Amino acid sequence: MDRPVDAPSLLIVLEAGLASTFRRRIRDRLESLGTQVSVLDGQGRNYLQVEGDIEPLRTLALDSWKGVEKSVFIGEAHRHGSRVDSGTHSRVSVGDVTLGAGEFVIIAGPCAVEEEERTLRLAASVASSGAHLFRGGAFKPRTSPYAFQGLGDKALQILSRAREETGLGIVTEIMDPRDVEKMSETADLLQVGSRNMHNYSLLKELGMTRLPVLLKRGFSSTAEEFLLAAEYILSGGNPNVILCERGIRCAAASRQVVLDLGIIPELKKKTHLPVIVDPSHGSAESYRVPALAKAAVAVGADGLLVEVHDQPEEALSDGRQALSPEEFKNLVPELKSIHQIVSGGQHVKQEGLISAPGGEDI
Amino acid sequence: MDRPVDAPSLLIVLEAGLASTFRRRIRDRLESLGTQVSVLDGQGRNYLQVEGDIEPLRTLALDSWKGVEKSVFIGEAHRHGSRVDSGTHSRVSVGDVTLGAGEFVIIAGPCAVEEEERTLRLAASVASSGAHLFRGGAFKPRTSPYAFQGLGDKALQILSRAREETGLGIVTEIMDPRDVEKMSETADLLQVGSRNMHNYSLLKELGMTRLPVLLKRGFSSTAEEFLLAAEYILSGGNPNVILCERGIRCAAASRQVVLDLGIIPELKKKTHLPVIVDPSHGSAESYRVPALAKAAVAVGADGLLVEVHDQPEEALSDGRQALSPEEFKNLVPELKSIHQIVSGGQHVKQEGLISAPGGEDI
Amino acid sequence: MDRPVDAPSLLIVLEAGLASTFRRRIRDRLESLGTQVSVLDGQGRNYLQVEGDIEPLRTLALDSWKGVEKSVFIGEAHRHGSRVDSGTHSRVSVGDVTLGAGEFVIIAGPCAVEEEERTLRLAASVASSGAHLFRGGAFKPRTSPYAFQGLGDKALQILSRAREETGLGIVTEIMDPRDVEKMSETADLLQVGSRNMHNYSLLKELGMTRLPVLLKRGFSSTAEEFLLAAEYILSGGNPNVILCERGIRCAAASRQVVLDLGIIPELKKKTHLPVIVDPSHGSAESYRVPALAKAAVAVGADGLLVEVHDQPEEALSDGRQALSPEEFKNLVPELKSIHQIVSGGQHVKQEGLISAPGGEDI
Amino acid sequence: MDRPVDAPSLLIVLEAGLASTFRRRIRDRLESLGTQVSVLDGQGRNYLQVEGDIEPLRTLALDSWKGVEKSVFIGEAHRHGSRVDSGTHSRVSVGDVTLGAGEFVIIAGPCAVEEEERTLRLAASVASSGAHLFRGGAFKPRTSPYAFQGLGDKALQILSRAREETGLGIVTEIMDPRDVEKMSETADLLQVGSRNMHNYSLLKELGMTRLPVLLKRGFSSTAEEFLLAAEYILSGGNPNVILCERGIRCAAASRQVVLDLGIIPELKKKTHLPVIVDPSHGSAESYRVPALAKAAVAVGADGLLVEVHDQPEEALSDGRQALSPEEFKNLVPELKSIHQIVSGGQHVKQEGLISAPGGEDI
Repeated sequence: MDRPVDAPSLLIVLEAGLASTFRRRIRDRLESLGTQVSVLDGQGRNYLQVEGDIEPLRTLALDSWKGVEKSVFIGEAHRHGSRVDSGTHSRVSVGDVTLGAGEFVIIAGPCAVEEEERTLRLAASVASSGAHLFRGGAFKPRTSPYAFQGLGDKALQILSRAREETGLGIVTEIMDPRDVEKMSETADLLQVGSRNMHNYSLLKELGMTRLPVLLKRGFSSTAEEFLLAAEYILSGGNPNVILCERGIRCAAASRQVVLDLGIIPELKKKTHLPVIVDPSHGSAESYRVPALAKAAVAVGADGLLVEVHDQPEEALSDGRQALSPEEFKNLVPELKSIHQIVSGGQHVKQEGLISAPGGEDI
Repeated sequence: MDRPVDAPSLLIVLEAGLASTFRRRIRDRLESLGTQVSVLDGQGRNYLQVEGDIEPLRTLALDSWKGVEKSVFIGEAHRHGSRVDSGTHSRVSVGDVTLGAGEFVIIAGPCAVEEEERTLRLAASVASSGAHLFRGGAFKPRTSPYAFQGLGDKALQILSRAREETGLGIVTEIMDPRDVEKMSETADLLQVGSRNMHNYSLLKELGMTRLPVLLKRGFSSTAEEFLLAAEYILSGGNPNVILCERGIRCAAASRQVVLDLGIIPELKKKTHLPVIVDPSHGSAESYRVPALAKAAVAVGADGLLVEVHDQPEEALSDGRQALSPEEFKNLVPELKSIHQIVSGGQHVKQEGLISAPGGEDI
Repeated sequence: MDRPVDAPSLLIVLEAGLASTFRRRIRDRLESLGTQVSVLDGQGRNYLQVEGDIEPLRTLALDSWKGVEKSVFIGEAHRHGSRVDSGTHSRVSVGDVTLGAGEFVIIAGPCAVEEEERTLRLAASVASSGAHLFRGGAFKPRTSPYAFQGLGDKALQILSRAREETGLGIVTEIMDPRDVEKMSETADLLQVGSRNMHNYSLLKELGMTRLPVLLKRGFSSTAEEFLLAAEYILSGGNPNVILCERGIRCAAASRQVVLDLGIIPELKKKTHLPVIVDPSHGSAESYRVPALAKAAVAVGADGLLVEVHDQPEEALSDGRQALSPEEFKNLVPELKSIHQIVSGGQHVKQEGLISAPGGEDI
Repeated sequence: MDRPVDAPSLLIVLEAGLASTFRRRIRDRLESLGTQVSVLDGQGRNYLQVEGDIEPLRTLALDSWKGVEKSVFIGEAHRHGSRVDSGTHSRVSVGDVTLGAGEFVIIAGPCAVEEEERTLRLAASVASSGAHLFRGGAFKPRTSPYAFQGLGDKALQILSRAREETGLGIVTEIMDPRDVEKMSETADLLQVGSRNMHNYSLLKELGMTRLPVLLKRGFSSTAEEFLLAAEYILSGGNPNVILCERGIRCAAASRQVVLDLGIIPELKKKTHLPVIVDPSHGSAESYRVPALAKAAVAVGADGLLVEVHDQPEEALSDGRQALSPEEFKNLVPELKSIHQIVSGGQHVKQEGLISAPGGEDI
C-alpha cells in the first residue's frame, strides 16, 4: 500500500449468518462506486473492509442496506483545516497583528457603530487600554427587521476614521456575498456572524478572496459543523480563517446561552486555525464578561472579541452585555497575567511587542 | 386616546424608595426618545407608564438603567404576520394549489434531484398517490463542501420536465440572493432552508418579489424568531409566506433532533400564515415518518413536506429519512381520514376536489 | 456456535500497522476479562472480534487503550424491556383496565388533589366523559420547598373516596422508597415522576413489588436512558411498567419544553412495554393540549395522561396547563375517532368494552 | 411600611379598558388569599400592586385570569441561600478544610473505589500533589442496572483506611435517604449527584442533619432550580451546602455535555454558598480536563472536584475522563498561580498554609 497509513477507511459489519449472495451484492455495489473491497471472515459473521475514495459513501444510508448490520468510518474526512501533525498551528495576519502566533490578541469595540464622535472616543479608549484591533458593526443582522440595522455605509466611513486615528485594524461584519468588495476597502478582518455560519454562498465568495475572515460558531452548531463551515472558505483557496466561539443555545443555561469553553481544547486538537472567544455574546449580561474573559484565556484561546461601550445601557444593540471602557481597562492586565501563566511564560517578549500604546505591560 | 386600545405599551417598575431626581432623569431620557411618560404612585415605589413609539426602546438595556427595577413590555411588537382578529387566516396560492384554505396539502419528492429518469418516475408516482406539489433540490446546502451539492442548473431543467409531465407545481430551495430571478423561472414555490432562516440578504430579496416562499424554521430558532424571519419577507411587501416546522436541535432527542409539533397550535394562534410540517427531517429515520406525518395532520398543520425516494438507501442526500413510493402511497389515505376528523368534516368537498388523479378518496 | 446469532458482540479496530506485540497485549487483557477473541487480518490493519460476556467491557474506555483505533459494539445490551420479536407487546393491567392491549386508555384528573368535594366532582366528571383512570397528586415534587407540596395522607383518603364513588382506578405519584407500602393501599398505578426517573433507590424498591408503575421520562433523558431506568424495575422482577413521554427540555421550544412525539414509534420499536403521552406537561399551556393530545393518538401512543381542573387558573399546581372538564369532554370523541383510524378499526369492540359509564362510543 | 424595602411584590397589569366590576372581582380574590392590594390608575388601563404574603400566588396561573394582561413578580422569592448583602459569603468546613474562605480547594480521586491497594495508592498520590480532600464512589448511580454499581460497604471501609493513611477528608456519594446515618460514619462531605438533585426525600433527610453536603447541578437544571434544590437542605436547618457545576446537556456540545462556567459568576451573585466545578464530568474526555480546570479557577470557583485514576483506560467507571496522577500533579501548580492572580494575591498566605506536602508553592 502506498496510500497514507492513516487514510480514512470504512468497515462494514455484515449481519450474522448473511448468505454469500447478499454479501456479493453489497460488495459489487461498493466496488461500482469506485472503491476496493476485501472480505474478512469472523466468527459467525463477516466484515467488508473498504478502501479508496470512500468520501462519497459518507452520504449514503449504508446502515439501511439489506444485510448491513453497521457501517463504521475510521479516520476523519480530509479537511484543509485539519492538524496534520501535532506541532503545526497556522498564523493569520490582520495588518500588523498576528493571530495564532502565541500572543493573546484582544479585539474590542461597540457592537454597532453609532455616532462618529462616540465611536472615535471608544476606539481611542480601547487602544490605550491594550486592544489590538477595533470592532464595530456597520451592517447588523438583527432578529427583527424593525430593529436598528446598523448605519451601513456611513458606519464604514466612521470605521476608516477610527483606523486613521488609532492605527488599530478594523473588524466588521459582512452579511451579503455582493458586499465583499465594498467591505474589503474598510475592513482588515471580515466577520461572519453566527446567523451566517451556514450561508454557503457567502462563505464560498469569501473563499475566493485572501481576506482574513473571523468565522463565528452557529447558535447550535457542533464542532464538526463549525469546522466544515470553515472548510467552505479554506477549500476555496483562502487560508486566512479565524474561528470564534460565542456561546450556544441551551435550555438550562441562563438566558438560554452557554459559552462552550470546552470547545477550545477540542478545536486546538482538531485544527491548526487560530481560535478566539467572544465572552460578550456568550455572557448575555455584562457582569459575567470579566470572569468569562479570564476563563477564555485560561482555557487556551488565542484571543478575545469583546464589546465595549461608554453607555452600555443606551447602546442601540446588545448594550446589556457590553463592558464600560473602565471595566475593559481594568480587565486587560489580568488577562495578560493569566496568559503568561498558561503559555508557560514563553510569550512574554511578544506580549511586550504587541501591546498597544499606553497598554500596561506586566 | 385615539390609538388602538391594544397598542403595545411599556411599564417601568422603579426601585423601591427611588429619589425623585433619579425618577426625573429616567423620565427625561424616555421622553427624549419620543415617548409619552406618566408616573403612577404605588406603595413604597413608583412606576412609569410609557406610550407612543416604544419599538426602538426594545433594543435598549432598560433593566440596566440606574433606578430601574424591571421593564415590562405589554403587547407584542407589530408584525405583518400577526393575527389581527381570531377569524382570519391568509391563503397562499401556488399554481392551482392553495395553502391555508382548509385543504391538507401534500408536497412530496426526493431530497435532491438525481438522474432525470428517476426524478420523472418519482414525480409521476407521488402525483398518482395524491401529492399536490413536487419537491426536489437543485442546489443543496450541505454541511460539508465535499458532499454532493446538487445538480444545479441541470436539476432545474429536470424539474421543469417533471411539471410538464405531471402538472404538479415545483418546490425547490434557494440559497443565494443572486439566484432569485433564475430560480423563479422553474419554481412555483421557493424554499428557504433552515440554514438560511437568518440569511437576511436572501429574505429581503424575496420580500421584493411576490413569489410564494416556504420558510423553514432554523435548527434552534424560537417561535418568535421564526415569525420575525418571516417578517423580513412580509415587510418587504411579499405576503406569500408559508411556514414549515422541521425539527429542532435537542440533546435528549434521538439523533439530537425533535419535531416540535407543539409549535403548530402556537403559530396558528399567533399568525395568519399557513403552517406545514416536514416530518422527514424531523424524524431522522424513515420508520418514524408515517407516525409523525399522521401526528402532524392531527395537530392541525395545513400540509406536509415529505421526502420520497425509490431507493432511499442509495439516495445521494438524506436517504435515511425518505419513504419509498409505496410507503407514501399507503400513508396518504390515512392522512386524509385524520384530516377529515380534525377539520370537523367541513373540508370533505375540497378534499375531493384537490385529490390528485388516482388518489383514494374516503 | 450455540449462542444466539444476534448476541451482542464487540469489534475492535486496531491502529494501522500496529506491532504484533501490542496486539498480543490487547488480546490478553480482553481475554483476562473473560471473553473470547479472534484476530481478523485486514488490508494494512487488523481487527479483533470479541465474543462472550462483553457487557462489563461497555464501561471501559477501550478507545483510549494504546493501539486501539476504535471499538464498535454490535447489537444492544440485553434488556428485559427489549422486543424479542416483532409481534410481541406486553399488557399491563391496572384494575379492570389494560394498557397495551390495543385500546386507547385515558388517565385524567387534577395535577394535585385539593379540596375533597372538588376532587370528587372532577372524578365524576372525567369518568362520565370517558376517562378510564383517575389521576391526582397527593405528594407533589415541587421545584421549590416553599411551593404547595400536596395534601399528603389526607389526599390519599380523598382518592380512595373517588375510587369508591366512580369505580375508576387511582394513579398517584410516589417519591420516597419508604412510602411504597403506604401508597400501594390507595394507588392502582404508581407514578414515578420525571424528577425521579434517575432515583434508583426508588426504582429498585418498586422492582421488588408487582405494582403497576407509570414511569415518566426525565427532563433531558434519551430513549436509551429512559429504557434503562425501566430496566431497574423490570430486572427486579416487576414486569408491570408503563412508559410516559412528557416533554423534554429544549432551548428553542416555547417555555423550553417540547413534547417529543417521535419517541413513540422509537419506543414501540425497541420495547414491548406500553407507552403513553402526557400532553399537559408537554404543552405548558392549555390551549395547546387538545391539539397535542390528538397528535399523541395519531402517532401511536397507547394512552394519555391529561390534567383536568374545574378552575385551572386557581389550581394550586400547574393550573396553566389543565383542561376544563368541558374541554376534556369535547376532546374524547375526537381522540377515539383518530384512534380508530390509526388502529385500523380493529379495536372498535374493545373500545366499546372499556368505555367508562356514560362515555360516548362511536 | 415596616416591611423590608426590597420585599418581593407583585404587579398585575389589567387589560386596557377593563370594566371596574371585573377589576373588583380580581382584587377580591387576591385579598381573599391574604394579600393587600392597591389600584394604580394609568393611561387607558389600571394596575394592581399586591403586597404581603405573595409567595403562594406564584403557583397560580394569574396570567390566565379573565381581565389580567400580565402578572409581574418583582424581587426573588425568599431563600436561605440568597446573598443578603454584597459582602457576605458563607464558609463550609469539612474537617480541617474550609470552602468559601478564599482558598482554592481541590477534591481529587477516582470516580469509583476499586481495589483497596489501588485506592490507597491514589489517595497518597493526590495528597502529595496538593489535593485537600479525597473523593471516591462507594455507591454509584449508573444509567444501567447492569453496570458496575460500586463496591458498597466494602468501599466505605477502604475510604476510611484512605483517610487514616493520608489525613485527607473523604467525599463520597449518597443516593438513598435510608443511608444517611451509615454514610456519615465514613464521609466528611456527602455528595448528592446530578441524578438526585431533584430527589427531595433525600434532600429533606440531609436537611435534618448538619453534615456538609456537596450538591451537584442536575443534567438540565437552571440556576434557579439548582438554588431551590439547595433550599430543600437549607430550609431544613442544615447550612452546610456546597454547590457544584458539572456540565449540562446541550445538543451542539461535544458528547452533548457542556461545562457552564458562566453559572459561576451568576451563583456568586445570587448566593452566599461556596461554588466548585467538576471539570471531569464537564469534559467527557480527559484531554480537555486541564484546560477546563484552569478556566474554572479563572472564572472564580472556590474549588475543583476532579477525577484521578492510575489506569484511566481500565477504570470501571468513567475512565475516559480521569486524569493520571502525573497529569494531576503537573496541573496543580498552574491552578494555584491562576488563583493567585484572580484572587488579587490576597490569599497567598492561606495558599501556603493549605498546600499539601510536596506541592509547589509560588
